[in-house]
Amino acid sequence: MSVVLDHSRNGVDTQQMYGTLDAIKAEPSLGVFQFRARNHWIDGAHNRSTIQGFYGAGQEDASRAHAFSVDAGEPAVLLGTDTGPNPAEHLLHALAACLTTSLVYVAAARKVRLTEVESTLEGDMDVRGALGLSDEVRNGFTKIRVSFKVRGDAPPEKLREVVERAKARSAVFDMVTNGVPVEVVSD
Amino acid sequence: MSVVLDHSRNGVDTQQMYGTLDAIKAEPSLGVFQFRARNHWIDGAHNRSTIQGFYGAGQEDASRAHAFSVDAGEPAVLLGTDTGPNPAEHLLHALAACLTTSLVYVAAARKVRLTEVESTLEGDMDVRGALGLSDEVRNGFTKIRVSFKVRGDAPPEKLREVVERAKARSAVFDMVTNGVPVEVVSD
Repeated sequence: MSVVLDHSRNGVDTQQMYGTLDAIKAEPSLGVFQFRARNHWIDGAHNRSTIQGFYGAGQEDASRAHAFSVDAGEPAVLLGTDTGPNPAEHLLHALAACLTTSLVYVAAARKVRLTEVESTLEGDMDVRGALGLSDEVRNGFTKIRVSFKVRGDAPPEKLREVVERAKARSAVFDMVTNGVPVEVVSD
Repeated sequence: MSVVLDHSRNGVDTQQMYGTLDAIKAEPSLGVFQFRARNHWIDGAHNRSTIQGFYGAGQEDASRAHAFSVDAGEPAVLLGTDTGPNPAEHLLHALAACLTTSLVYVAAARKVRLTEVESTLEGDMDVRGALGLSDEVRNGFTKIRVSFKVRGDAPPEKLREVVERAKARSAVFDMVTNGVPVEVVSD
């Protein structure tokens, strides 16, 4: 008799997941990561980041054969030529992506098979701040709203618990809600 | 005799820029914007945002004929298949893009012609937070370092002033350093 074990749930290899968690539990220094981006200006509001190397799990990662490239821009009304999402829209993407990935991993750990995860995000901004026209409004969003639709083989209350746990563990949700010290130097 | 006036500086139409600033000064409600993203889960750590419509300058924008699409993923060591930069790397891109665009606009307003703007960003993270292995470390970056190289037709101290002003007005720098209230709902 042969038994086929399927270790994948929601596209996550749960055996690898538990192995990773056990390894970092045993050796906490494996949890130290550094992520990086390089950006160069092209013209006007058009600039491009390249993203490849990072440090993590005790070594400099060499698994990415090519750099990712992500363009930013501004629409015409904000003086650009629409060469990509604008930086604030990229921040919404970063937040959506992190909450979604956290949610998928949490569901995998809790034996929930997901069939659908969608989210819509809105951020409200008075651009008089960023344009230097007012000191009474902040530069960034005053508020971000995230609305998730989550479907899977668990009752609604369990799916809501998974969303709550994802919020509690998402790296970008933490950064966007609590802030991060940023040091800027120039030469 | 004909005179050709070049209104472009750093790829920014300065006449349009001053016109935009004057219009919003005269009618502050034109500064009210809402940016948006939709995200859907594909598999595992792979998800994709589409970004198209926004509200601003007193109306729903219709200038983008197509949606932008941005993918996220995780490298193998973080249980993904490297389908895109990870969410924390996307946050670094959003920050770099916003500081760079702010810098380019500030330089245009201050009559500085830029020849080169590059930045490298690093973010330090102990992933034990996001993986749920420790409550003693935060989920997100503990610190972000941004290093700019800026070249143009102005002395170094003026270029540094432009960087400082960009920091003071960047929407994403504000959000990442000070945080934003985020409301998450799910059904």
